[in-house]
Amino acid sequence: MPSYGWLLALSLAALTGNPPGAVANEQTERNCSLTPPYLPSTAVNTTLQLKELRALMSPLSISAYIIPDTDAHLSEYISPRDARLAFMTGFTGSAGTAVVTPTKAVLWTDSRYWVQAERQMDCNWDLKRDVSIMSVAEWLISEVPPGGEIGFDPFLFSLKTQEDYSVNLMSSNRSLKSMPANLVDQVWKERPSIPPGGLIRLPDRVIQRSWQMKVEQIRSQMTDSPYKPTALLLSALDETAWLFNMRGSDIPYNPFFYSYTLLTMNEIWLFVHMERITDELKVYLNTSCDGPLCVQLKSYDSVLDDLKMYVDQPGIKVWIGTEYTNYALYEIITPEDKLMTSSYSPVLTTKAVKDETEQQILRDAHVRDAVAVIQLLMWLEKVVPEGKETELTAAKYVDTCRSKQKDNRGPSFDTISASGPNAALAHYSPTAENNRKLTVDEMYLVDSGGQYLDGTTDITRTVHWGTPTPMQKEAFTRVLMGNIEISRTIFPSGTRGVNMEMLGRRALWEVGLNYGHGTGHGVGNYFGVHEWPVGFQSNNIPFREGMFTSIEPGYYKENDFGIRIEDVAVIVPVTTKYGHNYLTFDTVSLVPYDRKLIDTSLLSSEQLQWLNSYYETIRKLVGLELDQQELHEEKDWMLRNTEPFVAPGSSASVSSSSLTLILLTVTLHNII
Amino acid sequence: MPSYGWLLALSLAALTGNPPGAVANEQTERNCSLTPPYLPSTAVNTTLQLKELRALMSPLSISAYIIPDTDAHLSEYISPRDARLAFMTGFTGSAGTAVVTPTKAVLWTDSRYWVQAERQMDCNWDLKRDVSIMSVAEWLISEVPPGGEIGFDPFLFSLKTQEDYSVNLMSSNRSLKSMPANLVDQVWKERPSIPPGGLIRLPDRVIQRSWQMKVEQIRSQMTDSPYKPTALLLSALDETAWLFNMRGSDIPYNPFFYSYTLLTMNEIWLFVHMERITDELKVYLNTSCDGPLCVQLKSYDSVLDDLKMYVDQPGIKVWIGTEYTNYALYEIITPEDKLMTSSYSPVLTTKAVKDETEQQILRDAHVRDAVAVIQLLMWLEKVVPEGKETELTAAKYVDTCRSKQKDNRGPSFDTISASGPNAALAHYSPTAENNRKLTVDEMYLVDSGGQYLDGTTDITRTVHWGTPTPMQKEAFTRVLMGNIEISRTIFPSGTRGVNMEMLGRRALWEVGLNYGHGTGHGVGNYFGVHEWPVGFQSNNIPFREGMFTSIEPGYYKENDFGIRIEDVAVIVPVTTKYGHNYLTFDTVSLVPYDRKLIDTSLLSSEQLQWLNSYYETIRKLVGLELDQQELHEEKDWMLRNTEPFVAPGSSASVSSSSLTLILLTVTLHNII
Repeated sequence: MPSYGWLLALSLAALTGNPPGAVANEQTERNCSLTPPYLPSTAVNTTLQLKELRALMSPLSISAYIIPDTDAHLSEYISPRDARLAFMTGFTGSAGTAVVTPTKAVLWTDSRYWVQAERQMDCNWDLKRDVSIMSVAEWLISEVPPGGEIGFDPFLFSLKTQEDYSVNLMSSNRSLKSMPANLVDQVWKERPSIPPGGLIRLPDRVIQRSWQMKVEQIRSQMTDSPYKPTALLLSALDETAWLFNMRGSDIPYNPFFYSYTLLTMNEIWLFVHMERITDELKVYLNTSCDGPLCVQLKSYDSVLDDLKMYVDQPGIKVWIGTEYTNYALYEIITPEDKLMTSSYSPVLTTKAVKDETEQQILRDAHVRDAVAVIQLLMWLEKVVPEGKETELTAAKYVDTCRSKQKDNRGPSFDTISASGPNAALAHYSPTAENNRKLTVDEMYLVDSGGQYLDGTTDITRTVHWGTPTPMQKEAFTRVLMGNIEISRTIFPSGTRGVNMEMLGRRALWEVGLNYGHGTGHGVGNYFGVHEWPVGFQSNNIPFREGMFTSIEPGYYKENDFGIRIEDVAVIVPVTTKYGHNYLTFDTVSLVPYDRKLIDTSLLSSEQLQWLNSYYETIRKLVGLELDQQELHEEKDWMLRNTEPFVAPGSSASVSSSSLTLILLTVTLHNII
Repeated sequence: MPSYGWLLALSLAALTGNPPGAVANEQTERNCSLTPPYLPSTAVNTTLQLKELRALMSPLSISAYIIPDTDAHLSEYISPRDARLAFMTGFTGSAGTAVVTPTKAVLWTDSRYWVQAERQMDCNWDLKRDVSIMSVAEWLISEVPPGGEIGFDPFLFSLKTQEDYSVNLMSSNRSLKSMPANLVDQVWKERPSIPPGGLIRLPDRVIQRSWQMKVEQIRSQMTDSPYKPTALLLSALDETAWLFNMRGSDIPYNPFFYSYTLLTMNEIWLFVHMERITDELKVYLNTSCDGPLCVQLKSYDSVLDDLKMYVDQPGIKVWIGTEYTNYALYEIITPEDKLMTSSYSPVLTTKAVKDETEQQILRDAHVRDAVAVIQLLMWLEKVVPEGKETELTAAKYVDTCRSKQKDNRGPSFDTISASGPNAALAHYSPTAENNRKLTVDEMYLVDSGGQYLDGTTDITRTVHWGTPTPMQKEAFTRVLMGNIEISRTIFPSGTRGVNMEMLGRRALWEVGLNYGHGTGHGVGNYFGVHEWPVGFQSNNIPFREGMFTSIEPGYYKENDFGIRIEDVAVIVPVTTKYGHNYLTFDTVSLVPYDRKLIDTSLLSSEQLQWLNSYYETIRKLVGLELDQQELHEEKDWMLRNTEPFVAPGSSASVSSSSLTLILLTVTLHNII
């Protein structure tokens, strides 16, 4: 699944259980210029919550209150209990910012969500078709009186968000007011509570490093730092989950649990909802002692107080990763010389490089995952011509196929199952309303992934069951060329993804095509499907052996079709003629591409060679798995779809055009 | 010429007239552990200047004084009168920082200069083999007592330098003290003075936009800015030179003159040494009026006072480019809301895109420049086997050839003429001491350029007059492949060079080779040879049509040989099958590569095709010029060296293998 910029966007519609439903013949969008205003049945009445929020704001002397879209861990996906933006506005899209003043209420969101916002919001709300903090700040300056204060929950702001607002409000005589007690939560009577249990420790078979080993590994990095931090504060949910080899289920598609960790050289403070820690977990975490490898359980809600207590001691220095620490925690680590920052914590950078076990089990998960995707593609090939299947039935089918695979824990995100023009919306997911029938006349894109106890998968294939146009075939082939060019590249360890990702675009650029999303993101062992900080974006860390990333160039023709080819690859060492420390990609997603969409005359001999070698790997690894699962029809389908390609213009099975030339010259000589 | 990081490094040795001379049989480096210490004849006695500096420091209550290597305009090359580091230390390398305390004196420099520093410094000075500000700051913390102040000249610090020192000294209880009156200048009795004249206006034939048009162009960008700046402050020397279409000769190889400009909507303040402005220039600059297109001359030395006066007014906002504004100017623009910053001023970003005239004359300059380089290569081919020529005589020869070309204004940098192992030092320049004889047994690299009234050139060719080893040939071919892969790439307007430059390395990476310098830098019309902010580095601006950049991959084998192939190219629009706003490079350096070093079997058909088409362009453009200059022998040499390449394994003399294929098929049909 492609990622957009830093905080990645995905529709929350399916998560909140409130998809924009379709009612026959009704005008689907609100019309606030009518008297009375027209509201579709999908609009949410927000009068009450707005009234109550304003009643809370009044005694606090704030002229505006900002409601962001994230949680206290700056998570990409949020739990229903953190869907404050949706509760206040009715709008369930994943990206947006709301501001409430005593008289106005405004939502800012980007173009993907404008229609959805017009369907879900009532006329209490204005929609601003923008998403930049500068735009919000400009509006605030125009609405808030000079000297006025603008309230925000510092738990829901990253350092950068706070800084961006500050810079944009600078010298405007309007100021931000940090208010750690969230006002929306006080209004939200039926706010979902934390589920009581749901925490697990990972089984030993998927673990190489115990949590104690990880703690010591991280502590040694603290010791090695020239800045001599005395503590490391972990705020991102996957940081604590990784450190303790534990998982939860607080957030849809993401096996995380609400938590923070403060790790010092002598102590480990784990902030959780303590009632969730079973006796078994207490034993596992060594909670009955107080040595350096004993976990001290602290209440999740006491993190501010306990951190303050720690910070108040002399001689301390707290290391934080600025990308995932919220402003509430940051602002109490004062004075500044008690703070040590890096973009990402050492947990995130250590976690980015998978150990041998993690690499092997993540490869294994991809083999099983390939079986599910092959089952989907084989089934669609059969049933689509019958005309009864839709985007939704296809999505359901692949989810079901995955659920039958060993250790599956559900999908890793809401399946993107998109036909024809729907596929041109890169983050489309089918709903009852926009669901499209699958036909042999349209291209179809399916971007899906699974959570497995041993790994997270994410793969996209684009197919055509009829006759593609020459342009579709050319675009698909050039997207594939991009995928191959990245995959086969040899590069020195430490090269940054952002400086290589143009290889995914170059074949498209050559004919004036391009795509508007990132080229790949990290993936790991039973974590979020977009696992930072690995990937091809400018804020990703340099590539090292043992990292996993998706590679996913695409091409989207508005109102027509969309193409994306996504594979996950692991970075492996490669032997070169002269040098050392060179790396390349080894693709671990193992599903063949649609043959009829590949124009082999566009491929270089190196690209054809890569493709044939990739298909050999599929045959070997997936073939074995299909045999073990006794899926004979799938095996035949896979073998048919991984026949080696032959270089165009050649009758022999070689690919180089210069060789072709020799062959022709030979022919010529024979004739003469 | 390759560039290293942000402030680019070049040996100043040749500029200061004080190259490390060689005396037979003497130990060339100092030995301070002997009693008395051993000093080579190249060492400079710095006792007196240190004593005087310390005498000045004492009443000012500073515990240390920092002496940087740049000037008040953060120039890459500096005038002899700004060589304060050399005056104080004896060390004439271009990169370094010195610190003097009451009892110690220390120089920090990088590995390129360690030997030179040991030869030039006396035992008053310690050498630190590092160059990071962190290392200087750590030393300062260890030497300066708590509460102590560290003096620096804010004119010689960029904002970033000041910030880096501040961050590294933070919470150490040692602080920086900004001292605008430079202490070294007070000690330096024989400091070179500003030459009285030397300022010229460019002739109309090389100008499309008058300075008045440029002023209005920049003012309209100020008006368009949402931040509503009231003034623009220009600090880099090429900013003022560009704006007024003027040049000077204050800095070796760089046609600049000491200046600042403050541009408001109604006024133009030009800070110069006023006695240098002739009556003719006064007329040219409209100095006798005070309208919005009249230049008000101000004394160069009053810039701080006059800027302060301007800043003290209400409602002003001064736009500065942070990369080239010194800390002295920055710190008086207070409070902060009177400041507007961008990395580069609008003058630098506007200047980066050449107008039609600038493009044409810069292309023309490269045609004439090619004649000079061809003359050098042809001459060397003849004379090297005779065994009398050296790196120095070759450098002198090419300088002489250039000086005979129309509008030449000398070399654009100290020619890098390097044979065998010397070429493995990327910034080597020959001196009497290290000068190497040219032979048929070694590779030879020549990186040189000219200043012309219409343009600045910069080109590198690497040749072998005997028999190259297979490894040399492979490395050369792969460097060439890198050059071609960048040159032929099609990319959307706005692509960043840093995200494409791996194309210059990829063919090398494939066999485990690489190079340690940048892949290219901007070049322009009679400015510095490294013209920022265009290029392939991370702090360069995105590529647009009309920008010129060098493309210069290389490979260096330590103690053996060095390869670099450098061409200047202009970014031009290209028609693609489906898209708009796509660009590519058009190479304007027009000198053939050494044929015997090219292994065509490694080249793709697209690369061969590019090469043959490039050679056709050389034949056409340089052929015409050689005819006009009646250089018949050179023309023959050029034609011999631009014969089209034939694809390996093919007997036909065309380059595209697909074309060969068609031709062969046609032949076949005819025969049948």
